[in-house]
Amino acid sequence: MDKIRVGLVGITGYTGMELARLLASHPHMELTMGCSRSEAGRRLGEFYPFLEGLPGADVIISTYAPEAVARECDLVFLAVPHGKAMVMAQELYDLGLRVVDLSADFRIHDAAVYEAWYKVPHTQKDLLPAAVYGLPEFYAADIAKARLVANPGCYPTSALLGLAPALTNGLVRTEDIVIDSKSGTSGAGRKAVTSSLYCEVSDSFKAYGLGKHRHTPEIEQELSLLAGTPVTVSFNTHLVPMNRGILSTIYTKRARKANLDEVWQIYSDFYRNHPFVRVCPRGVLPETRFVRGSLFCDMGLVVDERTDRLLIVSVIDNICRGASGQALANANLMCGLPMSAGLAQAPLLP
Amino acid sequence: MDKIRVGLVGITGYTGMELARLLASHPHMELTMGCSRSEAGRRLGEFYPFLEGLPGADVIISTYAPEAVARECDLVFLAVPHGKAMVMAQELYDLGLRVVDLSADFRIHDAAVYEAWYKVPHTQKDLLPAAVYGLPEFYAADIAKARLVANPGCYPTSALLGLAPALTNGLVRTEDIVIDSKSGTSGAGRKAVTSSLYCEVSDSFKAYGLGKHRHTPEIEQELSLLAGTPVTVSFNTHLVPMNRGILSTIYTKRARKANLDEVWQIYSDFYRNHPFVRVCPRGVLPETRFVRGSLFCDMGLVVDERTDRLLIVSVIDNICRGASGQALANANLMCGLPMSAGLAQAPLLP
Amino acid sequence: MDKIRVGLVGITGYTGMELARLLASHPHMELTMGCSRSEAGRRLGEFYPFLEGLPGADVIISTYAPEAVARECDLVFLAVPHGKAMVMAQELYDLGLRVVDLSADFRIHDAAVYEAWYKVPHTQKDLLPAAVYGLPEFYAADIAKARLVANPGCYPTSALLGLAPALTNGLVRTEDIVIDSKSGTSGAGRKAVTSSLYCEVSDSFKAYGLGKHRHTPEIEQELSLLAGTPVTVSFNTHLVPMNRGILSTIYTKRARKANLDEVWQIYSDFYRNHPFVRVCPRGVLPETRFVRGSLFCDMGLVVDERTDRLLIVSVIDNICRGASGQALANANLMCGLPMSAGLAQAPLLP
Amino acid sequence: MDKIRVGLVGITGYTGMELARLLASHPHMELTMGCSRSEAGRRLGEFYPFLEGLPGADVIISTYAPEAVARECDLVFLAVPHGKAMVMAQELYDLGLRVVDLSADFRIHDAAVYEAWYKVPHTQKDLLPAAVYGLPEFYAADIAKARLVANPGCYPTSALLGLAPALTNGLVRTEDIVIDSKSGTSGAGRKAVTSSLYCEVSDSFKAYGLGKHRHTPEIEQELSLLAGTPVTVSFNTHLVPMNRGILSTIYTKRARKANLDEVWQIYSDFYRNHPFVRVCPRGVLPETRFVRGSLFCDMGLVVDERTDRLLIVSVIDNICRGASGQALANANLMCGLPMSAGLAQAPLLP
Repeated sequence: MDKIRVGLVGITGYTGMELARLLASHPHMELTMGCSRSEAGRRLGEFYPFLEGLPGADVIISTYAPEAVARECDLVFLAVPHGKAMVMAQELYDLGLRVVDLSADFRIHDAAVYEAWYKVPHTQKDLLPAAVYGLPEFYAADIAKARLVANPGCYPTSALLGLAPALTNGLVRTEDIVIDSKSGTSGAGRKAVTSSLYCEVSDSFKAYGLGKHRHTPEIEQELSLLAGTPVTVSFNTHLVPMNRGILSTIYTKRARKANLDEVWQIYSDFYRNHPFVRVCPRGVLPETRFVRGSLFCDMGLVVDERTDRLLIVSVIDNICRGASGQALANANLMCGLPMSAGLAQAPLLP
Repeated sequence: MDKIRVGLVGITGYTGMELARLLASHPHMELTMGCSRSEAGRRLGEFYPFLEGLPGADVIISTYAPEAVARECDLVFLAVPHGKAMVMAQELYDLGLRVVDLSADFRIHDAAVYEAWYKVPHTQKDLLPAAVYGLPEFYAADIAKARLVANPGCYPTSALLGLAPALTNGLVRTEDIVIDSKSGTSGAGRKAVTSSLYCEVSDSFKAYGLGKHRHTPEIEQELSLLAGTPVTVSFNTHLVPMNRGILSTIYTKRARKANLDEVWQIYSDFYRNHPFVRVCPRGVLPETRFVRGSLFCDMGLVVDERTDRLLIVSVIDNICRGASGQALANANLMCGLPMSAGLAQAPLLP
Repeated sequence: MDKIRVGLVGITGYTGMELARLLASHPHMELTMGCSRSEAGRRLGEFYPFLEGLPGADVIISTYAPEAVARECDLVFLAVPHGKAMVMAQELYDLGLRVVDLSADFRIHDAAVYEAWYKVPHTQKDLLPAAVYGLPEFYAADIAKARLVANPGCYPTSALLGLAPALTNGLVRTEDIVIDSKSGTSGAGRKAVTSSLYCEVSDSFKAYGLGKHRHTPEIEQELSLLAGTPVTVSFNTHLVPMNRGILSTIYTKRARKANLDEVWQIYSDFYRNHPFVRVCPRGVLPETRFVRGSLFCDMGLVVDERTDRLLIVSVIDNICRGASGQALANANLMCGLPMSAGLAQAPLLP
Repeated sequence: MDKIRVGLVGITGYTGMELARLLASHPHMELTMGCSRSEAGRRLGEFYPFLEGLPGADVIISTYAPEAVARECDLVFLAVPHGKAMVMAQELYDLGLRVVDLSADFRIHDAAVYEAWYKVPHTQKDLLPAAVYGLPEFYAADIAKARLVANPGCYPTSALLGLAPALTNGLVRTEDIVIDSKSGTSGAGRKAVTSSLYCEVSDSFKAYGLGKHRHTPEIEQELSLLAGTPVTVSFNTHLVPMNRGILSTIYTKRARKANLDEVWQIYSDFYRNHPFVRVCPRGVLPETRFVRGSLFCDMGLVVDERTDRLLIVSVIDNICRGASGQALANANLMCGLPMSAGLAQAPLLP
């Protein structure tokens, strides 16, 4: 079988880097094009020394041009900032390509909500209905038929997978959910800013964007769909001095007195046929290192009888499951491949 | 003025190490004795190369013997495990010394609560009433008169300083408080266990002890006193790949619609005469590095109108303010010195 | 084709962990047995949560027993301490198995040299001639015919690959070589010792074992073979606060005035057919992250005309190329598979 | 006694930050002026939250203007890039101020050598003779009389203190010295560049600038003065994923068969009256954490009989001893204060 020809627009950020890594050992896909205005003309293997000698290293980085992309690619990943992605998605969609957009531009169904949180106009509203929210555990069938997938945000991925069994089974009250999320520093992107310097991040910990992170409406949209009722959450984010990983500690109040055995069984049943979600044994909590470099979402469950709460700890690799790996899983589904193609390696630790 | 002669029982852990560091530049105290069974006979400067050439380096580590301590010291810090500390405290108290106990043994007023959480019998119940809870911002006058101070736990210090203005001013509801705390790895102690190895902690993040951390009853005891009503909290802890620091994100529901300006003013007024608590300007959040090596507690305030919540972010150095530095501040007060003696250095960063 | 049945003795250390990781996605090998006295009876997936849901997770850890190993395995990796490995190797060899020994027991051809550096008697001297030194770039043909491979040390791997082209081409003087090596902390092993704790290693750097590291005779043995004359080196090691990686800065004096172009050409030619050694472009230096999790050895070359020196910077992943990955490459060769089977993933970064 | 009024030009880099930290607890100096074009108008305590509530926090950052500096300061630290510093130094010198220049502009006595390595013209050659090289262990008497001190580079400080006893006592050959230095990331400065981002530095190690680091001529100048003969060294630098610290491993060949006892005695005698240099006991090697935040230089000695070499391991804090702390020590000497004023705190660890 000929390999599927894949393009990657936005090569220089961590999500682009991660896609280059994953595609280098994909059995059925081949990176044929990589776009970046600032690095155009360089060999990818020269720009990314880790890639030298591997598939994709010989791609010459080029400036994005939709017709060229259409000629050389069957499917395109957009790893560019929101606002910029929507225009490219429209151009490539119109040219008949399959598109996985890693930005936020097509995640929010209601353009007004998007515009309120992202402070930019949505210029491609007509394309919104064609986009499928790319969380494979929820929407695999739709993804398989889609030509445009809105790849979920990193935080929402951890929060939604963590809360779905509880909400769809009425385990918790919907009006009182707190999500305390902690992310590795790759989540801050690869832009050269002082606050992301090694000596500013290392050996320190901070909160940021409390109550106003842009992933909030995305989380609330999907939780509301799961619960069948509008859900508002307190969603708050922190920066961890580590490269990769998100851990979300989710605080809920029980809707009924389900004990740990019952909760654990409901979670286990919910994800029985979803091998990339691993529910930890009762009494065990997940750690971000156990999912490093993988598509796994590990979760731990705690029932706190003293405070009548169910606590859910959900762990992912923010760049792999939270971005590029999930994008690749979506691309696999769009192309009729198993979701796991090219994503079967074990997590790397230490 | 002659220097106050200070003993330190438990030299090998991180709190002992930190006390050795702080005492080395204390203007009015002098380390005259350091006890450790395993290291007895060694010079302290040989055991701690960082201390070489500084005051305290020439102390010969000895095995604890109460009469010897009484001969050579005016005041003693107990940096030994709970259970062990209570016996020593009693012995030294009976010999007339001033004692600052860094363990949990005298923090909980109700011995039954202590025994339920710590799973050991309290063998010195008669001494409990003599002990003062050593949070200087709350109890400075009592500390000054005490001969036994129960030095607060690291997490409780961050939580109590963070919640006090809100609770004493009726800003938040008392029945719905969630404290999500994150600690640097020195909080796990200096014992050689696999889970504390560099390669197990580095580049990873995890939760632990959710809903059952032993600092819970200490927090609830003091919050209840502040609020004038029993308070139960959901208190939960996480491990950060960094050496020092605790950040507690505290989730509360507003009892009334106080806006950020009002809340900020109440906090600023509350701590106006307490220079080691720094309320960040409106819109600014604290970071653990800004308090590294110091007695400062920095706090940031967020009013989230969407969810009707007040969020408090409270940051300390877990070994300095959360243990040894606070112990030294208490010792200062007990000896009639300014609380800040020997604690005036600026935080060290990067 | 049936999968080759593989056993792993010594599951709990970092090299055992890394072999479990690599074998989980090997196309032609299957982990059928994992031995550890301390963990016997547990499922491997329970002991290593990262492995859950992947091939190998269902192996029940057992106590080592040679006959059982012989029944269930075709090939065995010994990831146990030196001294212990030699006995097992003999037992399994006698039972007809293929053995890759990750310890030092069969690396040194001269048992007297081994005994002088390792301070233990070599009890299996008769087996020494059967062992092949498992550096695939040098000895692939011998490895393919061997039933016992002595897997190289991590530091020697970086040093030997770095110096081979220079020594075999007479570029440098043999009597004046300094190797300054820096290793990530996984190289210190997974034993619970204070000096390997996060808070002892993090944000610090140290030298250790200067002039007396046990990898010295292994390096000198192989360099002498390459040079055709006895070579003594000054070999010195340092500990870096990172998980994985070795960087060796190798200081040599030029034997003749070869300039950078010539040196670079000699190195490139030397490794032309060895895809896992990547010679950096002139003027570029390698970084450990670029080889993380892979079999790559990256090297950079500097000719310093001022001091008449050739400097070689050689970089590997100490656990993958420096131990378990190289062991797997050797196992591949011993089984008639391509050296790269199961080792084709791109390095993981950040 | 009135406090000495101190100005700091270049507030935003790590050396400026460190000076602000140290001055905050200096008993006899007071920061009265802080200059930065980009941050002019802000309170220093707002720009550096760690400084809030401490001396210096209320300084309003201003744009550099020599006359204003002369009015408000007795002594000025220049923490600005080389090239820029020389002009300011001249202006302030002419206005009668004492100046400690942390840049390289006045370190090299021979302007032609400076220009060859730094690639900029030296525009203030006439001022060169007035500048004293500010290594207090060598030049304390001259520093005390100087009005312009050229503060040494971080690497040279570690290398020169490490080699001085060996060279002045004829222990080692002068023509064959290799200095392999490793620095924490603060040494790369606080500029927002991709290569200094947390995710590019963390969990990795690299060499840089091999054979061509600009500190080379400074090292050679001072070594030549110590040895009384021209010395050329191979000086090479590496980046460590840590905030602070430099460790230099110095490789020398013995000039005579001095054993460890003799070497250790010579070093101990050499630094007997220099309390900030600590020679480790025989058999002990230093670690960067043991000097963190301090003026200490710790050094370990190894005599390797096999290779006839003396190895010296020299450790400093690159920002404190290697820059700002040493600058403060020089300022103390220039003002008739003890070198240690404001520098007596113990190192901070973990």
